Amino acid sequence: MTTVNVDRLLSPRSVVVVGASARPESPGARVFAGLKRLDFAGAIHLVNPTRAELDGHPCVASISAIPQEVDLAVLCVPKDAVQASLEACIERKVGAAVVFAAGYAEQDEGGAQEQRRLEDTARAAGIALLGPNCLGFANLRARAPITMVNIAKPASDAPGVAIVAQSGAFMSSLYATMSLKGTPVSSIISVGNQAVLGVEDFLARFIDDDGTCVMAVFAERLREPKRFLELAARAREKHKPIVMMHTGRSSKARDAAASHTGALAGDDAIMRALVAHESVILVDSIDELADVAALAAAFPEAPTKGVGVVTNSGALRGITFDFCESAGLDVPVLDAATVEKMASRLPAYAVAENPIDVTVQAIAEPDLIGAGARALLDDPNIGSAVLAVHAGKEAAEYARLAGPMLAGSRKPVAYSLLGEGAPLSPELAAALRENGIPLFRSVERALGAVAKLTGYGRSRLRSPRAASPSAPVPVFAGAGTLTEHDSKNWLRQLGIAVPKGALAKTVSDATRIAKDIGYPVVLKAQASGLAHKSDAGGVILNIADEVALLRAWDELHANVRRARDGLALDGVLVESMARKGIELVIGIKRDPDWGPVMLLGLGGIWIEILKDVRLMPLDFTEAAIVEELTRLRASGVLQGARGNRPADLRAVARIAATLGQAVLATPQVKEVDLNPVIVYPEGEGAVALDALIVA
Amino acid sequence: MTTVNVDRLLSPRSVVVVGASARPESPGARVFAGLKRLDFAGAIHLVNPTRAELDGHPCVASISAIPQEVDLAVLCVPKDAVQASLEACIERKVGAAVVFAAGYAEQDEGGAQEQRRLEDTARAAGIALLGPNCLGFANLRARAPITMVNIAKPASDAPGVAIVAQSGAFMSSLYATMSLKGTPVSSIISVGNQAVLGVEDFLARFIDDDGTCVMAVFAERLREPKRFLELAARAREKHKPIVMMHTGRSSKARDAAASHTGALAGDDAIMRALVAHESVILVDSIDELADVAALAAAFPEAPTKGVGVVTNSGALRGITFDFCESAGLDVPVLDAATVEKMASRLPAYAVAENPIDVTVQAIAEPDLIGAGARALLDDPNIGSAVLAVHAGKEAAEYARLAGPMLAGSRKPVAYSLLGEGAPLSPELAAALRENGIPLFRSVERALGAVAKLTGYGRSRLRSPRAASPSAPVPVFAGAGTLTEHDSKNWLRQLGIAVPKGALAKTVSDATRIAKDIGYPVVLKAQASGLAHKSDAGGVILNIADEVALLRAWDELHANVRRARDGLALDGVLVESMARKGIELVIGIKRDPDWGPVMLLGLGGIWIEILKDVRLMPLDFTEAAIVEELTRLRASGVLQGARGNRPADLRAVARIAATLGQAVLATPQVKEVDLNPVIVYPEGEGAVALDALIVA
Repeated sequence: MTTVNVDRLLSPRSVVVVGASARPESPGARVFAGLKRLDFAGAIHLVNPTRAELDGHPCVASISAIPQEVDLAVLCVPKDAVQASLEACIERKVGAAVVFAAGYAEQDEGGAQEQRRLEDTARAAGIALLGPNCLGFANLRARAPITMVNIAKPASDAPGVAIVAQSGAFMSSLYATMSLKGTPVSSIISVGNQAVLGVEDFLARFIDDDGTCVMAVFAERLREPKRFLELAARAREKHKPIVMMHTGRSSKARDAAASHTGALAGDDAIMRALVAHESVILVDSIDELADVAALAAAFPEAPTKGVGVVTNSGALRGITFDFCESAGLDVPVLDAATVEKMASRLPAYAVAENPIDVTVQAIAEPDLIGAGARALLDDPNIGSAVLAVHAGKEAAEYARLAGPMLAGSRKPVAYSLLGEGAPLSPELAAALRENGIPLFRSVERALGAVAKLTGYGRSRLRSPRAASPSAPVPVFAGAGTLTEHDSKNWLRQLGIAVPKGALAKTVSDATRIAKDIGYPVVLKAQASGLAHKSDAGGVILNIADEVALLRAWDELHANVRRARDGLALDGVLVESMARKGIELVIGIKRDPDWGPVMLLGLGGIWIEILKDVRLMPLDFTEAAIVEELTRLRASGVLQGARGNRPADLRAVARIAATLGQAVLATPQVKEVDLNPVIVYPEGEGAVALDALIVA
Repeated sequence: MTTVNVDRLLSPRSVVVVGASARPESPGARVFAGLKRLDFAGAIHLVNPTRAELDGHPCVASISAIPQEVDLAVLCVPKDAVQASLEACIERKVGAAVVFAAGYAEQDEGGAQEQRRLEDTARAAGIALLGPNCLGFANLRARAPITMVNIAKPASDAPGVAIVAQSGAFMSSLYATMSLKGTPVSSIISVGNQAVLGVEDFLARFIDDDGTCVMAVFAERLREPKRFLELAARAREKHKPIVMMHTGRSSKARDAAASHTGALAGDDAIMRALVAHESVILVDSIDELADVAALAAAFPEAPTKGVGVVTNSGALRGITFDFCESAGLDVPVLDAATVEKMASRLPAYAVAENPIDVTVQAIAEPDLIGAGARALLDDPNIGSAVLAVHAGKEAAEYARLAGPMLAGSRKPVAYSLLGEGAPLSPELAAALRENGIPLFRSVERALGAVAKLTGYGRSRLRSPRAASPSAPVPVFAGAGTLTEHDSKNWLRQLGIAVPKGALAKTVSDATRIAKDIGYPVVLKAQASGLAHKSDAGGVILNIADEVALLRAWDELHANVRRARDGLALDGVLVESMARKGIELVIGIKRDPDWGPVMLLGLGGIWIEILKDVRLMPLDFTEAAIVEELTRLRASGVLQGARGNRPADLRAVARIAATLGQAVLATPQVKEVDLNPVIVYPEGEGAVALDALIVA
């Protein structure tokens, strides 16, 4: 979308602060102070109309006086002066600009127009523009802090977390939290109104950045959803987790996003489903975002097995089980050798099973916590270990002894205190930091982060996308809303089961077709103008014989005439009456933001009242679709509840997969609705009872 | 249950430390040090077999050497010495004892036996025994810290939180957290294995304790459920919230509880429903327990209206809406006067609606945050205010200016920072503490605590319990599993609608009854040994006329003979075939722990697959039962989904309320199952189609 050079923004060789100021709290002063604090290696130019120098650094009076081809202009000027400043910068062949000022698209239509003008100007000149309505960014590895936020000199250049947030406050807060946790940060970006550069532009860069191992994203709206999905797929491939908090679950939050950064949020449910299928880790709070990013940064290999816990408090066992059950994280049974090893070290009243409870014995043997964690990490059934200790001054000693036993673990390890009131001694913090073990202030938060990272690890193992089908997709003809008959003809060509039947133009057609396919039959009035044929009395079920058929033929035509006088029918579909089974819905639509998406669910109340559906891309494999079906809340119905046999999920998946591939290959198909699809017990298949295609 | 004098435990005038020791980390040394640190005003006796004095305080060599009638003995001795020490204390007429030692019921059957011996000894002597397997307690207002946990001298004697926890680690951790938050703590108790004194004994005391305003409970098992419910009702009446974390949602957690404190957990769903009906605030994590307790302690009047938020970050608006929607907390529209007042102070790009976003304008006008919060508190639609600020050094200034504007508010106020990484300046903490405003490290946690406290406030407003019915309950006769016919006879006497019908002994009875009530009818085989009559072919529906009835009579008898050869029927129930409607289930059972409980839900998949039921006491009013019905996930079905008319919820509630009162008055009824109850559209009533009573 953007062809500007993001490098001149993020790794500038020279910077001009437009609106440099002596007032220490002014944006200009803050940016200048930050550049000096981090020893920015490039040239710094200051523009101030009245001062010859600031803090010993010379100023020029106007943009026109700066050298040609400065990489980055930081526009610390009031909104009224932004457009003119940008144009002046373009005169000087500046490559990139940051606009802090607010009052654009987030405010009103007048502001939106000014923002479009800014955007057009920047795009025309190829300027990499960040903002407006942002707090800037910092590239910590390049020692380039272009922000009003206080940035500290990084302690190391280890690969770290890149923070990309729409909200400047969020960026700043998350940066502070990561710093407190001792997690390296590579870059922080507040994209604000995303007039030119947006979340996706920065993600694209960080996925390929060796200095970045995890991306933490806060978004109110993803501006380029399809590109985001492609980027997420690439990040997944490169094993760089994207952890994202995205507001907009509630309709009020979506309205709020519009007034905050002038962005309209898309369909939240579709967003959540599709990004999760690309292994994006979705989180629900600021704390969770920080927790998961910190753990992921510390352990590049995401676990796929369950968690092991070692504690000195029996209460933690119950808390662990309750929490992990609700978080969907298993607490595996330990290998017999592990249990034996721990049992031999522990007193009788301790517990050598997962979670291991070493009890107060830890006071006498403070290495027990570390020994328990080591045993967990060595256990083949365990993917990660959480140390959960009763805080107190012993906690530091436990950490000091455990650290070297666990250092360098490839399996994630987290140290947590029971509650956040415990004094956090510098010895404890140091012992953990030295050995690369993240600290969590509560066991729930440690387990929550492990649960998310394990979900990511498992998601990466899946290969839910099918290759394109080998058989060519039959040509699709038709436009607008197709009749059921025409819709089913295409399905039939695709190999999707539909009831036996044919279109009757006359009553003698109808009797002939019925005799052919066998009674009982159904009649369904067909006309492209008749979308809701049942409501018009255009469907008559369970016709037992020819006498009933003749009567039904007349009744159907009378009904339709009464409901829709003057409507000419294309004919009447005569079909076998299907056996009873479980009703499902398979739908496909093309979301304006996210592209084609498939919906699967049980019909009736399940969708209408419980909103119990699964959403997925169109190229899922049959196996992946079966897995999605088992994740429906209604899956019990499909798996043989109430004494019924399990439903033929593979047959449903085959229909969905076939249809999905066909629609992917047929761009003119806008929407498909198979409602209901009847599924029978295992081995007996599934059949699309009704079908509606819109092209 | 216990007649011991808890005062001698909690407010001892004299204490003997049995097992006093010079080793600073030993329990005896810790307890002694704690008593001195808090200037315990009573007499302190030390028992040590080898030392004449410890730290300048004289020791005696054995328990037999202590004076008579010391209030409290702290048994800091190994488990092997506990029983003998207790007996020696009884000799000296000690009134209470604390046992720290572990290895009792939580370990194995041998330990359980030793615990029972301890219990019997203590009960026989009227000793108020705390433990075993506990960390003791501290009564901070009495300056009596009888625990190995480090207790600080309390800063004030303001009413505070009483902490009652099964787990000592949990008690200690929660105490540390409350201290960090600056929340006064009145007492902390770890009840351990609850051999004599349990959670309920201490709650009973704190409800009437003027020094306690909130009770924070951590439990793996409530030993006296019915007493707990009575206590909760009394606490609710006295407006003292009980905030409780109770593990055991997962079956594994229940197993873990058994091994931790030797306690078997009861039915978790029943516990949760019944305690929530008594306005107990249930929480799911340690942090949440601390957050809610701190907020409740700071604001004794719980809110009943929604939350107002003021922020300087637009992102917080979306986060607030999303979070509050999932937490069930409303974010009310502000009064027009409030909006006008804020709009006049704010720039055009700010938001004067709830949540109020003062934007970066707060930097120029740092009193805006406080002014916004003040406006929220003054708004008649708002029950509480959350200040959510972008952290940074301004946060302290905002707090300093906001404090005096909000001090003394009766509506809860919470100050929160956007994420926990922000430096927490002493100025910020002091400004809040001086004005009684609790601080939360994230807006989600502040809103979560407000949501829980608002739920409590609303729960207190309800009066869901009905007075006893004025009409006398008809006499119940019968024992064992009643037949449907006998069950329905009692229902009919209660005024609960059942289908017209009567018991037929012979086929001519049957035809006469059918003629009387009108066709179509159903036949249902009746025998108390035939609980699953449908499975035995003992139910034949939709019998249209006499010919069909004769045929059905023979068929039914043949079916039952085939299924249950030799079973003698009491007769056959001939009933009107009921119209179709929505199927509900009303059940009553007597839980061994929690007593009688009523279950309401929709039948079929709703119960079997979704476990979608409401549980409640038997004396709920019709209005309260209607409210419960609307909280079913399936409530959409009842409220007129899919073009249907809303169901007659009042008729269902009338059945449930009548039945509940009747069963309360009829102790011999053990179980009632009305499955299904058919409910018709509003005004058309409901009818119990099948009924099973076990007496």
